[in-house]
Amino acid sequence: MESCQWGSTPDGGMNRLTLNDDDKRVREWFIAQVKQYGCAVTVDAVGNIFATRPGTNNALPPIGLGSHLDTQPAGGKYDGIVGVLSALEVLKSLHDNNVQTYAPIAVIDWTNEEGARFPPAMLGSGVWAGKFTPEYAYGRTDLKGAKLGDELKRIGFKGEVPASYEANPLSAHYEVHIEQGPVLEAENKPIAVVTGVQAITWFNVELRGREQHCGTTPMDRRADTLLAAAQMIVGINAVALSIPGALASVAVINSTPQSINTLASSVQFNIDARATDDATLARLEAALEQRCREVAAQSGVELRAWDRFWNAKRTVFDERMVGFVRESAAEGGFASRDIQSGAGHDSVYTAARVPTSMIFIRCKGGISHNPAEYSSPEDIAAGAQVLLGAVLKYDAY
Amino acid sequence: MESCQWGSTPDGGMNRLTLNDDDKRVREWFIAQVKQYGCAVTVDAVGNIFATRPGTNNALPPIGLGSHLDTQPAGGKYDGIVGVLSALEVLKSLHDNNVQTYAPIAVIDWTNEEGARFPPAMLGSGVWAGKFTPEYAYGRTDLKGAKLGDELKRIGFKGEVPASYEANPLSAHYEVHIEQGPVLEAENKPIAVVTGVQAITWFNVELRGREQHCGTTPMDRRADTLLAAAQMIVGINAVALSIPGALASVAVINSTPQSINTLASSVQFNIDARATDDATLARLEAALEQRCREVAAQSGVELRAWDRFWNAKRTVFDERMVGFVRESAAEGGFASRDIQSGAGHDSVYTAARVPTSMIFIRCKGGISHNPAEYSSPEDIAAGAQVLLGAVLKYDAY
Ligand SMILES: NC(=O)NCCC(=O)O
Ligand SMILES: NC(=O)NCCC(=O)O
Repeated sequence: MESCQWGSTPDGGMNRLTLNDDDKRVREWFIAQVKQYGCAVTVDAVGNIFATRPGTNNALPPIGLGSHLDTQPAGGKYDGIVGVLSALEVLKSLHDNNVQTYAPIAVIDWTNEEGARFPPAMLGSGVWAGKFTPEYAYGRTDLKGAKLGDELKRIGFKGEVPASYEANPLSAHYEVHIEQGPVLEAENKPIAVVTGVQAITWFNVELRGREQHCGTTPMDRRADTLLAAAQMIVGINAVALSIPGALASVAVINSTPQSINTLASSVQFNIDARATDDATLARLEAALEQRCREVAAQSGVELRAWDRFWNAKRTVFDERMVGFVRESAAEGGFASRDIQSGAGHDSVYTAARVPTSMIFIRCKGGISHNPAEYSSPEDIAAGAQVLLGAVLKYDAY
Repeated sequence: MESCQWGSTPDGGMNRLTLNDDDKRVREWFIAQVKQYGCAVTVDAVGNIFATRPGTNNALPPIGLGSHLDTQPAGGKYDGIVGVLSALEVLKSLHDNNVQTYAPIAVIDWTNEEGARFPPAMLGSGVWAGKFTPEYAYGRTDLKGAKLGDELKRIGFKGEVPASYEANPLSAHYEVHIEQGPVLEAENKPIAVVTGVQAITWFNVELRGREQHCGTTPMDRRADTLLAAAQMIVGINAVALSIPGALASVAVINSTPQSINTLASSVQFNIDARATDDATLARLEAALEQRCREVAAQSGVELRAWDRFWNAKRTVFDERMVGFVRESAAEGGFASRDIQSGAGHDSVYTAARVPTSMIFIRCKGGISHNPAEYSSPEDIAAGAQVLLGAVLKYDAY
């Protein structure tokens, strides 16, 4: 397990942006691992890797155990990675104990879950679920203009199998993940039974004002694009604070022409908007748009793009699958509680096609998307054990 | 004149960042021009080009006629360029009419006046005036990390002559420039007699907060660096509006790690602060710092750098030199008025060492640092004529 550290950073974190050279190396490592356990490997057209261990009845679609090996640019060693490693532990355990499952089991590394390099997030599982076309995914670009499709080819992970739940089906999907929030730690419990995922929308916003000389243009004769963007960012925060259950964040900004004595003429930024349910998210989105349009009108800066380029509705996981997780945790003697996830996961998209649920494990201080991310070996082992139990329950059923 | 268009952009503007390939070409063109008029060319250690036409008494330091050929990244065709072309017109006129001046005349292209690529502004004239060391200038870096010293060498303009008012003296300095403000147009006058330049300070500001997950971190548990920066930008604007005679602008911002679902952990931005006099600028600076420190304290974001890396005090030009410009404008029959410049100019630094003054010409809508910058051929000709008259007056004196 220590051997999947490509992209480690000196501060204890990871920088393994999807489809970079380190992602290629960890994918190759993953394939070598699963081959030890007698798995057949298929790579689909968007680079999702399926490692399938046969069962008794191989006419059945496999039970998926998936997560992701890509990370944030300054992320941690646990987000996603723990899910894939837990699935590998389940494989190893079945293999070492010569357990024959009824259905085949597929351990999956989904492509571009983070969305950090190629927005939006959960793109690989989204294509598999038919939420995006492969062409849409291929055309996504990173900050330097590289295209996802070209990067897939470059690292040799553009597979032959169609990226589709129809051509390459699963019968169910389980995912272990770190909580990325502070609830389990506060309640001193190692495990959460994930009942669903909150609703998410990402916006791309583009503003156009005027290049003007900072030293000669009176304060009241400006169309200052960066000032307008700043007013919007402050407004976005205020709007989110005013709506219970809502979150809104701006974490990407690009300003042009970046000269100290010339007011910016164009600014691009993104908004990450979330809410516990779809109705609250709709209310949040409307309020954000209204606030930004007000700022634009008052500042003489044009709102050139207000592009709602990604929405993932609130997900409610399959009751039976959630029940299997809850039972498995109880049988393992692990204190647990139900939780709705704040972060998106590949399970959001698999849930659209097959019965899905998730297992969260406690993480330190709720810190995630940060090099300081941490879960203890004991909690990780607990997660893997709950996963194994839940898989066997689904298989028996 | 049409032949110095390297770096022209399709929108009618110019992108000739200092020491890029287009700046190399325009420098070579400049040297070819001045050689036609019998000038000796020297390039100093920071790339300032002096084209000297002998006078009767060549023991005297030359009268300098300088400005700059570099531009903003999305700048106009007039800022700086008009000053060099006016000086070339004076040369041509002396040459064509076989006028022998008493003192030699030096037409000067100062390096990196804009400061857009290598902050701060007026760096070449600043080194000449002893305000910066050559080493300081060589070490300035652009957004891509290229160093000014390396770029000077790369384009072949790191000269042998020391960049110094002592080793390479002038006796006076005149500069023609577009107004970059709306006053002359509003008063329907082609010419302004520039009496001085307002005070300028540039800050580098660096903030450090925490990378956190945008979807799982409650709004009240964040150290959101980009939000803090936005609050500061809004505050900086409010502070400037509250102080008569003050301007403050933020036009450069860099945020890390630029991932839509991870709150920014570090943000860098610059402040351009100006005021009509030094006392007002001091008041402005103190209020800006106080506001930014308040935001930092309230948001849990650390103000890691508050670096006042450039200050140019208010400049008052030499009375006699100003008088020569005023008389020359009157003799040419051009309506004029006195003005204090809002923009910095190479003349700020020459004024620290030799009698200096400037001539402004009217520009459309006061627009500058913008591709739409414009001055009419008639107004430019008027500026050159006033310059010639002022030069001859100083020479006679
Ligand atoms: N789990 C996780 O951090 N996924 C990234 C997608 C999101 O932004 O929620
Ligand atoms: N003239 C001019 O635009 N100079 C640039 C220096 C400044 O920022 O004022």
